[in-house]
Amino acid sequence: MEKRDLIVRCIRTFNDFPTKGIPFKDIFPILKNPQALTAVIDLFEEYVRNTHPQVDLIVGLDARGFLFGPLLAQRLGIGFAPIRKKGKLPGPTISVSYSLEYAKAEAEMQEDAVSAGQKVLIIDDLLATGGTLQAAYELVKQQQAEVLACLVVVELKYLNGADKLKTTTVFSLVQY
Amino acid sequence: MEKRDLIVRCIRTFNDFPTKGIPFKDIFPILKNPQALTAVIDLFEEYVRNTHPQVDLIVGLDARGFLFGPLLAQRLGIGFAPIRKKGKLPGPTISVSYSLEYAKAEAEMQEDAVSAGQKVLIIDDLLATGGTLQAAYELVKQQQAEVLACLVVVELKYLNGADKLKTTTVFSLVQY
Repeated sequence: MEKRDLIVRCIRTFNDFPTKGIPFKDIFPILKNPQALTAVIDLFEEYVRNTHPQVDLIVGLDARGFLFGPLLAQRLGIGFAPIRKKGKLPGPTISVSYSLEYAKAEAEMQEDAVSAGQKVLIIDDLLATGGTLQAAYELVKQQQAEVLACLVVVELKYLNGADKLKTTTVFSLVQY
Repeated sequence: MEKRDLIVRCIRTFNDFPTKGIPFKDIFPILKNPQALTAVIDLFEEYVRNTHPQVDLIVGLDARGFLFGPLLAQRLGIGFAPIRKKGKLPGPTISVSYSLEYAKAEAEMQEDAVSAGQKVLIIDDLLATGGTLQAAYELVKQQQAEVLACLVVVELKYLNGADKLKTTTVFSLVQY
Protein backbone atom coordinates (compact mmCIF):
# COMPACT_ATOMS: atom_id res chain seq x y z
CA MET A 1 0.00 0.00 0.00
CA GLU A 2 1.18 3.54 -0.65
CA LYS A 3 2.32 5.44 2.40
CA ARG A 4 -0.36 8.09 2.08
CA ASP A 5 -3.14 5.48 1.70
CA LEU A 6 -1.97 3.69 4.82
CA ILE A 7 -2.19 6.97 6.76
CA VAL A 8 -5.64 7.83 5.36
CA ARG A 9 -6.98 4.41 6.32
CA CYS A 10 -5.95 4.99 9.94
CA ILE A 11 -7.76 8.34 10.42
CA ARG A 12 -11.25 8.08 11.98
CA THR A 13 -14.00 10.72 12.08
CA PHE A 14 -16.14 11.26 15.19
CA ASN A 15 -19.05 13.63 14.58
CA ASP A 16 -20.07 16.25 17.15
CA PHE A 17 -16.82 16.09 19.10
CA PRO A 18 -15.83 18.00 21.19
CA THR A 19 -18.99 20.06 20.45
CA LYS A 20 -22.01 19.71 18.15
CA GLY A 21 -21.27 20.23 14.45
CA ILE A 22 -17.54 19.41 14.65
CA PRO A 23 -16.46 16.32 12.63
CA PHE A 24 -13.42 15.41 14.74
CA LYS A 25 -10.53 13.69 12.96
CA ASP A 26 -8.92 11.14 15.28
CA ILE A 27 -5.27 10.63 14.34
CA PHE A 28 -4.41 8.29 17.23
CA PRO A 29 -4.90 5.09 15.20
CA ILE A 30 -1.88 6.23 13.16
CA LEU A 31 0.18 6.03 16.34
CA LYS A 32 -1.12 2.55 17.09
CA ASN A 33 0.10 1.31 13.70
CA PRO A 34 3.92 1.46 13.60
CA GLN A 35 4.02 1.29 9.78
CA ALA A 36 1.58 4.20 9.46
CA LEU A 37 3.57 6.32 11.92
CA THR A 38 6.78 5.54 10.05
CA ALA A 39 4.99 6.57 6.83
CA VAL A 40 4.05 9.96 8.34
CA ILE A 41 7.63 10.67 9.36
CA ASP A 42 8.98 9.36 6.00
CA LEU A 43 6.76 11.76 4.06
CA PHE A 44 7.58 14.70 6.32
CA GLU A 45 11.30 13.91 6.10
CA GLU A 46 11.18 13.63 2.30
CA TYR A 47 9.43 17.02 2.04
CA VAL A 48 11.89 18.71 4.40
CA ARG A 49 15.01 17.26 2.74
CA ASN A 50 13.75 18.31 -0.70
CA THR A 51 12.30 21.71 0.18
CA HIS A 52 13.84 23.00 3.42
CA PRO A 53 17.17 21.21 3.93
CA GLN A 54 18.48 24.26 5.81
CA VAL A 55 16.10 23.74 8.77
CA ASP A 56 17.66 24.24 12.25
CA LEU A 57 14.82 23.40 14.64
CA ILE A 58 11.38 21.75 14.81
CA VAL A 59 8.79 23.60 16.92
CA GLY A 60 5.78 21.52 17.95
CA LEU A 61 2.43 22.33 19.49
CA ASP A 62 1.07 20.83 22.71
CA ALA A 63 -0.22 18.16 22.82
CA ARG A 64 -0.57 16.34 19.49
CA GLY A 65 2.34 18.13 17.83
CA PHE A 66 4.45 16.46 20.55
CA LEU A 67 3.62 13.07 19.00
CA PHE A 68 5.25 13.82 15.65
CA GLY A 69 7.73 16.66 16.28
CA PRO A 70 10.43 14.77 18.21
CA LEU A 71 10.27 11.89 15.70
CA LEU A 72 10.87 14.24 12.77
CA ALA A 73 13.56 16.16 14.66
CA GLN A 74 15.43 12.90 15.40
CA ARG A 75 15.23 11.84 11.75
CA LEU A 76 16.74 15.16 10.72
CA GLY A 77 19.31 15.16 13.55
CA ILE A 78 18.10 18.51 14.92
CA GLY A 79 16.38 19.77 18.08
CA PHE A 80 12.74 20.15 19.08
CA ALA A 81 11.14 22.99 21.08
CA PRO A 82 7.58 23.18 22.43
CA ILE A 83 4.74 25.66 22.31
CA ARG A 84 2.26 25.11 25.16
CA LYS A 85 -0.87 26.60 26.63
CA LYS A 86 -0.20 29.46 29.05
CA GLY A 87 1.16 28.49 32.46
CA LYS A 88 2.70 25.16 31.44
CA LEU A 89 6.29 26.23 30.70
CA PRO A 90 8.73 27.32 33.45
CA GLY A 91 11.15 30.25 33.28
CA PRO A 92 10.91 33.39 31.14
CA THR A 93 8.33 32.98 28.37
CA ILE A 94 6.70 34.96 25.57
CA SER A 95 3.00 34.55 24.80
CA VAL A 96 0.34 35.24 22.16
CA SER A 97 -3.49 35.12 22.36
CA TYR A 98 -5.52 33.41 19.65
CA SER A 99 -8.91 31.93 18.72
CA LEU A 100 -9.41 28.24 18.11
CA GLU A 101 -12.00 26.41 16.03
CA TYR A 102 -14.12 26.04 19.17
CA ALA A 103 -12.42 28.01 22.00
CA LYS A 104 -10.00 30.80 22.96
CA ALA A 105 -6.51 30.27 24.28
CA GLU A 106 -3.04 31.68 24.89
CA ALA A 107 0.12 30.04 23.56
CA GLU A 108 3.53 30.30 25.20
CA MET A 109 7.12 29.55 24.36
CA GLN A 110 10.25 29.67 26.49
CA GLU A 111 12.30 32.76 25.69
CA ASP A 112 15.42 30.71 24.98
CA ALA A 113 13.64 28.04 22.93
CA VAL A 114 14.53 29.60 19.57
CA SER A 115 17.53 31.76 18.70
CA ALA A 116 17.46 34.81 16.42
CA GLY A 117 18.15 33.80 12.82
CA GLN A 118 17.26 30.11 13.24
CA LYS A 119 15.26 28.45 10.49
CA VAL A 120 12.23 26.74 11.98
CA LEU A 121 9.55 24.28 10.89
CA ILE A 122 6.34 24.27 12.93
CA ILE A 123 4.54 20.95 13.33
CA ASP A 124 1.07 19.99 14.54
CA ASP A 125 -1.34 17.13 13.92
CA LEU A 126 -4.08 19.12 12.19
CA LEU A 127 -4.79 22.45 10.49
CA ALA A 128 -8.37 23.63 11.11
CA THR A 129 -9.00 27.40 11.11
CA GLY A 130 -5.28 28.11 11.50
CA GLY A 131 -5.55 30.01 14.80
CA THR A 132 -3.07 27.85 16.69
CA LEU A 133 -0.51 27.69 13.89
CA GLN A 134 -0.75 31.46 13.34
CA ALA A 135 -0.05 31.95 17.07
CA ALA A 136 2.93 29.60 16.77
CA TYR A 137 4.15 31.54 13.74
CA GLU A 138 3.96 34.82 15.69
CA LEU A 139 5.83 33.36 18.67
CA VAL A 140 8.70 32.18 16.46
CA LYS A 141 8.83 35.53 14.61
CA GLN A 142 8.87 37.42 17.95
CA GLN A 143 12.16 35.65 18.61
CA GLN A 144 13.61 36.91 15.29
CA ALA A 145 13.66 33.41 13.87
CA GLU A 146 12.43 32.40 10.41
CA VAL A 147 9.46 30.09 9.81
CA LEU A 148 10.17 27.98 6.71
CA ALA A 149 6.79 26.18 6.70
CA CYS A 150 4.08 24.57 8.82
CA LEU A 151 3.71 20.78 8.63
CA VAL A 152 0.48 18.98 9.55
CA VAL A 153 -0.76 15.44 9.10
CA VAL A 154 -4.36 16.53 8.36
CA GLU A 155 -5.62 19.72 6.72
CA LEU A 156 -9.34 20.59 6.87
CA LYS A 157 -9.34 22.48 3.56
CA TYR A 158 -12.99 23.55 3.93
CA LEU A 159 -12.02 25.73 6.93
CA ASN A 160 -9.48 27.68 4.82
CA GLY A 161 -6.84 27.70 7.56
CA ALA A 162 -4.04 28.02 5.02
CA ASP A 163 -5.46 31.41 3.95
CA LYS A 164 -5.02 32.68 7.51
CA LEU A 165 -1.41 31.51 7.33
CA LYS A 166 -0.70 33.50 4.14
CA THR A 167 2.70 34.44 5.50
CA THR A 168 3.98 30.87 5.42
CA THR A 169 3.60 27.62 3.47
CA VAL A 170 1.47 24.74 4.77
CA PHE A 171 2.47 21.17 3.92
CA SER A 172 -0.17 18.55 4.75
CA LEU A 173 -0.23 14.80 4.16
CA VAL A 174 -4.03 14.29 4.06
CA GLN A 175 -6.68 16.83 3.04
CA TYR A 176 -10.46 16.90 3.66
CA MET B 1 30.24 11.73 27.62
CA GLU B 2 28.14 8.93 29.02
CA LYS B 3 24.53 8.90 27.88
CA ARG B 4 23.13 9.40 31.35
CA ASP B 5 25.46 12.33 32.07
CA LEU B 6 24.42 14.02 28.85
CA ILE B 7 20.76 13.72 29.89
CA VAL B 8 21.42 14.99 33.43
CA ARG B 9 23.27 18.04 32.08
CA CYS B 10 20.21 19.00 30.01
CA ILE B 11 17.69 19.00 32.89
CA ARG B 12 17.04 22.40 34.47
CA THR B 13 15.36 23.19 37.82
CA PHE B 14 12.96 26.13 38.19
CA ASN B 15 11.96 26.76 41.81
CA ASP B 16 8.38 27.68 42.77
CA PHE B 17 6.83 26.51 39.48
CA PRO B 18 3.95 26.08 38.86
CA THR B 19 3.29 26.95 42.54
CA LYS B 20 5.40 27.98 45.56
CA GLY B 21 7.55 25.21 46.99
CA ILE B 22 7.70 23.07 43.83
CA PRO B 23 11.21 22.66 42.33
CA PHE B 24 10.11 22.05 38.73
CA LYS B 25 12.34 19.84 36.58
CA ASP B 26 12.38 21.15 33.01
CA ILE B 27 13.11 18.32 30.58
CA PHE B 28 12.64 20.34 27.37
CA PRO B 29 16.37 21.07 26.93
CA ILE B 30 16.76 17.30 26.35
CA LEU B 31 14.49 17.67 23.32
CA LYS B 32 16.52 20.59 22.02
CA ASN B 33 19.67 18.47 22.03
CA PRO B 34 19.31 15.65 19.47
CA GLN B 35 22.13 13.59 21.05
CA ALA B 36 20.51 13.81 24.49
CA LEU B 37 17.12 12.77 23.12
CA THR B 38 18.73 9.85 21.28
CA ALA B 39 20.42 8.89 24.58
CA VAL B 40 17.04 8.81 26.38
CA ILE B 41 15.54 6.51 23.78
CA ASP B 42 18.71 4.35 23.64
CA LEU B 43 18.57 3.76 27.41
CA PHE B 44 14.83 3.04 27.38
CA GLU B 45 15.23 0.67 24.43
CA GLU B 46 18.13 -1.16 26.10
CA TYR B 47 16.06 -1.64 29.28
CA VAL B 48 13.01 -2.87 27.39
CA ARG B 49 14.94 -5.30 25.17
CA ASN B 50 16.73 -6.74 28.20
CA THR B 51 13.84 -6.81 30.66
CA HIS B 52 10.52 -6.73 28.78
CA PRO B 53 11.15 -7.99 25.22
CA GLN B 54 7.56 -9.30 25.09
CA VAL B 55 6.04 -5.78 25.13
CA ASP B 56 3.11 -5.22 22.72
CA LEU B 57 2.25 -1.54 23.18
CA ILE B 58 3.57 1.72 24.63
CA VAL B 59 1.00 3.83 26.49
CA GLY B 60 1.99 7.48 27.03
CA LEU B 61 0.61 10.30 29.12
CA ASP B 62 -0.53 13.68 27.78
CA ALA B 63 1.42 15.85 27.21
CA ARG B 64 5.06 15.16 27.98
CA GLY B 65 4.73 11.39 27.67
CA PHE B 66 3.82 12.13 24.04
CA LEU B 67 7.36 13.45 23.49
CA PHE B 68 9.06 10.14 24.29
CA GLY B 69 6.42 7.43 23.78
CA PRO B 70 6.16 7.44 19.98
CA LEU B 71 9.98 7.52 19.67
CA LEU B 72 10.34 4.44 21.84
CA ALA B 73 7.43 2.68 20.13
CA GLN B 74 9.05 3.26 16.73
CA ARG B 75 12.39 1.92 17.95
CA LEU B 76 10.65 -1.23 19.15
CA GLY B 77 8.44 -1.51 16.04
CA ILE B 78 5.23 -1.44 18.09
CA GLY B 79 2.25 0.89 18.52
CA PHE B 80 1.58 3.81 20.85
CA ALA B 81 -1.70 4.71 22.60
CA PRO B 82 -2.50 7.86 24.59
CA ILE B 83 -3.92 8.67 28.01
CA ARG B 84 -5.34 12.19 28.14
CA LYS B 85 -7.16 14.52 30.48
CA LYS B 86 -10.94 14.03 30.47
CA GLY B 87 -12.77 15.35 27.41
CA LYS B 88 -9.84 15.26 24.99
CA LEU B 89 -10.39 11.85 23.37
CA PRO B 90 -13.29 11.11 20.97
CA GLY B 91 -15.42 7.98 20.94
CA PRO B 92 -16.11 5.55 23.79
CA THR B 93 -13.64 6.05 26.65
CA ILE B 94 -12.94 4.77 30.15
CA SER B 95 -11.79 7.14 32.90
CA VAL B 96 -10.19 7.27 36.35
CA SER B 97 -9.94 10.13 38.89
CA TYR B 98 -6.65 10.86 40.63
CA SER B 99 -4.68 13.43 42.67
CA LEU B 100 -1.59 15.15 41.29
CA GLU B 101 1.39 16.69 43.10
CA TYR B 102 -0.41 20.05 42.96
CA ALA B 103 -3.94 19.48 41.51
CA LYS B 104 -6.78 17.01 40.90
CA ALA B 105 -7.65 15.51 37.52
CA GLU B 106 -9.36 12.76 35.57
CA ALA B 107 -7.50 10.58 33.05
CA GLU B 108 -9.12 8.94 30.03
CA MET B 109 -8.30 6.29 27.47
CA GLN B 110 -10.15 5.19 24.36
CA GLU B 111 -11.93 1.90 24.97
CA ASP B 112 -10.24 0.26 21.97
CA ALA B 113 -6.76 1.63 22.73
CA VAL B 114 -5.57 -1.52 24.48
CA SER B 115 -6.73 -5.11 23.94
CA ALA B 116 -7.24 -7.68 26.68
CA GLY B 117 -4.06 -9.63 27.30
CA GLN B 118 -1.69 -7.09 25.71
CA LYS B 119 1.59 -6.41 27.50
CA VAL B 120 1.99 -2.69 28.03
CA LEU B 121 4.71 -0.27 29.08
CA ILE B 122 3.54 3.10 30.42
CA ILE B 123 5.74 6.12 29.71
CA ASP B 124 5.86 9.65 31.08
CA ASP B 125 8.51 12.31 31.50
CA LEU B 126 8.53 12.40 35.31
CA LEU B 127 7.45 10.46 38.38
CA ALA B 128 6.47 12.75 41.27
CA THR B 129 3.86 11.49 43.76
CA GLY B 130 2.80 8.74 41.34
CA GLY B 131 -0.85 9.83 41.04
CA THR B 132 -0.85 10.10 37.27
CA LEU B 133 1.03 6.86 36.66
CA GLN B 134 -1.22 5.02 39.11
CA ALA B 135 -4.26 6.30 37.17
CA ALA B 136 -2.64 5.13 33.93
CA TYR B 137 -1.96 1.73 35.51
CA GLU B 138 -5.62 1.41 36.53
CA LEU B 139 -6.86 2.38 33.05
CA VAL B 140 -4.71 -0.30 31.41
CA LYS B 141 -5.77 -2.92 33.97
CA GLN B 142 -9.46 -2.02 33.45
CA GLN B 143 -8.94 -3.17 29.88
CA GLN B 144 -7.62 -6.55 31.04
CA ALA B 145 -4.15 -5.75 29.76
CA GLU B 146 -0.90 -6.28 31.66
CA VAL B 147 1.40 -3.46 32.79
CA LEU B 148 5.01 -4.66 32.55
CA ALA B 149 6.54 -1.46 33.97
CA CYS B 150 6.41 2.33 34.04
CA LEU B 151 9.25 4.24 32.34
CA VAL B 152 10.12 7.82 33.22
CA VAL B 153 13.04 10.09 32.39
CA VAL B 154 13.09 11.72 35.84
CA GLU B 155 12.11 10.25 39.22
CA LEU B 156 11.70 12.55 42.24
CA LYS B 157 12.72 9.90 44.78
CA TYR B 158 12.00 12.19 47.77
CA LEU B 159 8.26 12.11 46.90
CA ASN B 160 8.18 8.28 47.13
CA GLY B 161 6.02 7.90 44.03
CA ALA B 162 7.36 4.39 43.38
CA ASP B 163 5.83 3.27 46.71
CA LYS B 164 2.40 4.30 45.46
CA LEU B 165 3.03 2.19 42.36
CA LYS B 166 3.83 -0.94 44.40
CA THR B 167 1.94 -3.05 41.89
CA THR B 168 4.40 -2.33 39.08
CA THR B 169 8.10 -1.62 38.48
CA VAL B 170 9.38 1.89 37.83
CA PHE B 171 12.39 2.37 35.56
CA SER B 172 13.87 5.89 35.64
CA LEU B 173 16.93 7.35 33.94
CA VAL B 174 17.66 10.18 36.39
CA GLN B 175 16.81 10.33 40.09
CA TYR B 176 16.63 13.29 42.51
